[in-house]
Amino acid sequence: MDKVTPRTLSGFMELLPAPQQQMEILLDTLRRVYSLYGFTPLDTPAIESAEVLLAKGGGETEKQIYRFMKGDSDLALRFDLTVPLAKYVAANYANLAFPFRRYQIGKVWRGERAQRGRFREFYQADIDVIGDGKLDIMNDAEAPAVIARAFEELGLEDFTIRINNRKVLGGWFELLGIGGRVTETLRTVDKLEKIGPEKVRELLCAGGLTDGQAAGVLEFVTLEGSDERKLAFLDEHAGENALLDEGARELRAVIEALPSLGVAPGRFAVDLTIARGLDYYTGTVYETRVNSHPEIGSVCSGGRYDNLAEYYTDKKLPGVGLSIGVTRLFYVLSEQGLLNGGVVTAPCDTIVLPMTADTAFAAHVATVLRGAGVRTQLYTEDKKFKQKLSYAGKLAVPYAVIIGEDELECGEVSLKDMSSGTQARFTPEDAALEVLAGIRRRAGEKLIKVN
Amino acid sequence: MDKVTPRTLSGFMELLPAPQQQMEILLDTLRRVYSLYGFTPLDTPAIESAEVLLAKGGGETEKQIYRFMKGDSDLALRFDLTVPLAKYVAANYANLAFPFRRYQIGKVWRGERAQRGRFREFYQADIDVIGDGKLDIMNDAEAPAVIARAFEELGLEDFTIRINNRKVLGGWFELLGIGGRVTETLRTVDKLEKIGPEKVRELLCAGGLTDGQAAGVLEFVTLEGSDERKLAFLDEHAGENALLDEGARELRAVIEALPSLGVAPGRFAVDLTIARGLDYYTGTVYETRVNSHPEIGSVCSGGRYDNLAEYYTDKKLPGVGLSIGVTRLFYVLSEQGLLNGGVVTAPCDTIVLPMTADTAFAAHVATVLRGAGVRTQLYTEDKKFKQKLSYAGKLAVPYAVIIGEDELECGEVSLKDMSSGTQARFTPEDAALEVLAGIRRRAGEKLIKVN
Repeated sequence: MDKVTPRTLSGFMELLPAPQQQMEILLDTLRRVYSLYGFTPLDTPAIESAEVLLAKGGGETEKQIYRFMKGDSDLALRFDLTVPLAKYVAANYANLAFPFRRYQIGKVWRGERAQRGRFREFYQADIDVIGDGKLDIMNDAEAPAVIARAFEELGLEDFTIRINNRKVLGGWFELLGIGGRVTETLRTVDKLEKIGPEKVRELLCAGGLTDGQAAGVLEFVTLEGSDERKLAFLDEHAGENALLDEGARELRAVIEALPSLGVAPGRFAVDLTIARGLDYYTGTVYETRVNSHPEIGSVCSGGRYDNLAEYYTDKKLPGVGLSIGVTRLFYVLSEQGLLNGGVVTAPCDTIVLPMTADTAFAAHVATVLRGAGVRTQLYTEDKKFKQKLSYAGKLAVPYAVIIGEDELECGEVSLKDMSSGTQARFTPEDAALEVLAGIRRRAGEKLIKVN
Repeated sequence: MDKVTPRTLSGFMELLPAPQQQMEILLDTLRRVYSLYGFTPLDTPAIESAEVLLAKGGGETEKQIYRFMKGDSDLALRFDLTVPLAKYVAANYANLAFPFRRYQIGKVWRGERAQRGRFREFYQADIDVIGDGKLDIMNDAEAPAVIARAFEELGLEDFTIRINNRKVLGGWFELLGIGGRVTETLRTVDKLEKIGPEKVRELLCAGGLTDGQAAGVLEFVTLEGSDERKLAFLDEHAGENALLDEGARELRAVIEALPSLGVAPGRFAVDLTIARGLDYYTGTVYETRVNSHPEIGSVCSGGRYDNLAEYYTDKKLPGVGLSIGVTRLFYVLSEQGLLNGGVVTAPCDTIVLPMTADTAFAAHVATVLRGAGVRTQLYTEDKKFKQKLSYAGKLAVPYAVIIGEDELECGEVSLKDMSSGTQARFTPEDAALEVLAGIRRRAGEKLIKVN
C-alpha cells in the first residue's frame, strides 16, 4: 500500500511526551492560579460565524484569519480570545453577574507567515474582568497580581510587570499642545528602547513637533527613578490637565494597591513609556519582561478598555485584562534552556515490572499504588528483565516496582529508586507510602529555573 | 453604529459559567484518572494537512469534515483523535518508547446535520496503548479499568462496561460455515436489541443463511447467564475452531484480570453481541451503558486493533483504546438532571466585601485567603451592602467575608456562610481555615448523582 508521509504542519506545535508534560504543568498552573483569584473558566467554540468574528473588521487580522465556507455558512477560526469574550458577554448579558471575571485558556489560529518561534496555532491564557457601566480601579491592580502569582508559582522569579496609564500619556501630550497627535507620537515613542532618545527626538521633530514639544515628550518618557519619584512628578503637574490628573490618580491607586495584594516590590514598576494597542486600551496598560532575557519581549500584556462589546451591543462594558501567549512563552523558555530538568516528565511515578508469568499479583500491586494516588504503569509485555528496566529508564520513571519469584512468595515488592539505584523490599502499601514521600520531596521543583 | 448580532453557531456547545464549571470538573477528573494509570498527555494540532488526515480516505468522514484551502495548502480540522495519534506515532516512532500509552482530551469537528444533542464541535477523551509489533492482553483489561475508575470518581456508579472479542464472533461464524459473511451477519446482529431475536432470524435467513446457521448465530448472541457461564460455553467448543479458541482465551484473560485491577464485579460483563467498528477492531471490543438510562446508548466505546498507522508506516503497531464522547455525555447528564447540585459551581469559595472606603485591609484579607489556597474574589465596586450580597448570591459563592467599620478596627472579618446564613467573627487567618474546612466537607460531593 502507498503510504502518506505522516507530517505536522509548520507553525503548529506538537510536542514529544516529556516536553508535553512540561506544557501541561504550565497550563495547569495558570488554570489553578486564575481560579484562585476568582476567575471562572470559559470555553468558547474554535469556529465562529465570520460575520461575528470580524464584526470589528479590517486590518491585518482579516488577512491572517482561517476563513472558509461550509455549505452556505461563512465560518472562521478564532484569532484571539477577546472577540469571543465580547460576543459571549453581549449574548449572555442577562444571565451574567457583573463584574464578570473569566479566564480562558485555549488555542487561537492565525495564518501568519511561518518562521522560527512564530506559531499559526497557539494557546492564549487570558483573564478579564468586565464591568456593567463602571468598573473599580482595584481590578486594574488585581489583574497584574494574578499574573505575578502565576509566574512565581511557575518558578519565574525574575520578571517585572511594567505599568502605565494611557490617560497620563494623553494628558501630558495635551499639556504639550499635541493632544491631537497622540497616536503617531506614541508610535514614535514606542521605538525608544530600540533607537534611543536622540533618534526619537529627530523623528518627532521630523513629524512636525516643535523642539520644545519633542523635549517635553522626551522629558516625560525618559523620566528615571523609583515609582514614587515618577508619581511625584505627575503630582507636581496636578491641576494642569484634567486627563493627566485622572491618569495620575488611577496609576497611583494601582501602584499603591499592589503590595496589599501580595505583590512584592521588585515585581512591578511604573514605566511611563508603555502605550500598547493604540486604538484599544484607554487606561491602565501592562507589559511584562523577563529581566535577564529582555530579548524575549513582553510575556504578558494587556490593559483597561472602555468598551468590550461595542460591535454587538449598546451596553457600555468596560474591562481590564491580561493575556499570556503560552505557546510562545513555552517555546522561548524551552529554547533558552530555562525549563527545570528536575521536574518529573514521566507518564507515571512508578512502573510495576512482574518478572514471572504471574501477573495477577502485579495487577494487585498496581491497584494498591493507584488507590493511594500514585501514578502507576503496569508493564506486562513479554520482555527480558534488562529490556523492562531500559523501558523504565527511557521514560525516566522515578521508581520501578519489581516483582520476582521471591517477592511474589512473600507478597512484597522491591522498590527501586531509578535515580539513586537503591532498592528495598516493602509491602505494596508501604511501597505506595515510600513513593508518595518521594513525590512530596520533588513537589518543590518548579517548572522554570532562571539562573 | 450598526450592531452585529452576537450569536454562537448551532451545534457548538457554549456554556454559562455554572455549567462550564461542571464541565471543567468532568474534564479534570478524566485528566487525573488517565494520568493515574500512567497515560501521558498528548496535544496534537486542530488543523492537519487534508492529505494526512484523509489518508484512509472515503466514506462518511469525508463529507462531514471541515476542509479548506489557506494559500496553496489543503487543510482540514481533525474529526477524531485516532488519526492524529496514528500520524504522531508514525512520525515520532524513533523517539517513543513502546508500549506507548497516551491520553488526549480535545475538541474534534464534524459538520454533521445539526440536531438536538448532536454536536459539530465536541470533546473526545481517549486513552490508547500502542505496542511495537506485539501488545500484551493485560492492556485490554487495563483500558476498561481506567474507565471504571474515572466513572466512579465522577459519581457514575450505575454503569456496565460490556466486553466481547471479535475473534470469538468470527470463530463462531466460521464454525457455522459463514466465516465469509461476518460483516453483514454482525450488522444484522447489531439490531438485536432494537428489533428482537425473531426479526433478526428472519433478516439472517433473508440474507441467505440456512435455518441452522441462523439458529446457530442466535444461540450464540442470545446466550444468557453469568460471565463464567458464557466463558464456559466457549470452553465447551474448545478445539473446534482456532480463531474461536484464541478469542475465548483473550476474553477470559481480560475478564479474569479485571478484579485484580480493582474493577468491582457489577461494573463489567461479557456481552457476546457487541461487535462495533466492523472494519477496524480485531480483538477485544467494549461498550459502556448507564444501566438506569439505556436510552443514552454507549457512553464509552473502543477496542483492540491490529494496526494503528498502516496508512503512514510499514511498522505493525497494534493497540487498544477507549474513547469517551465528553460533550455528548455532559449534554445528556445535564438534560437528564443527573448533575449534582451540591457541587460548587461558583467562580470562588469566598468573596471579600469591604463595606467602607478603605480597601487596603480588604485586599490584605483576600491575599491571606488566597495564600491559604482559598479561591477568593475581592469585590470593591461602589455598591450598597444589599447589592453586594445579592451579587454573591447570584454567583452562589459559599462564603462572604464582610469587613465593616467594626471589623476594620479590630483587624478581623465577619465570615458569612451563605447557605446557612450564619455569621461569625474571625481573624483573616482563621477565616481561611474555616473556609478550607467547609471546602473539605463538600469535597465528597461528586459531579454525577444517579438516583
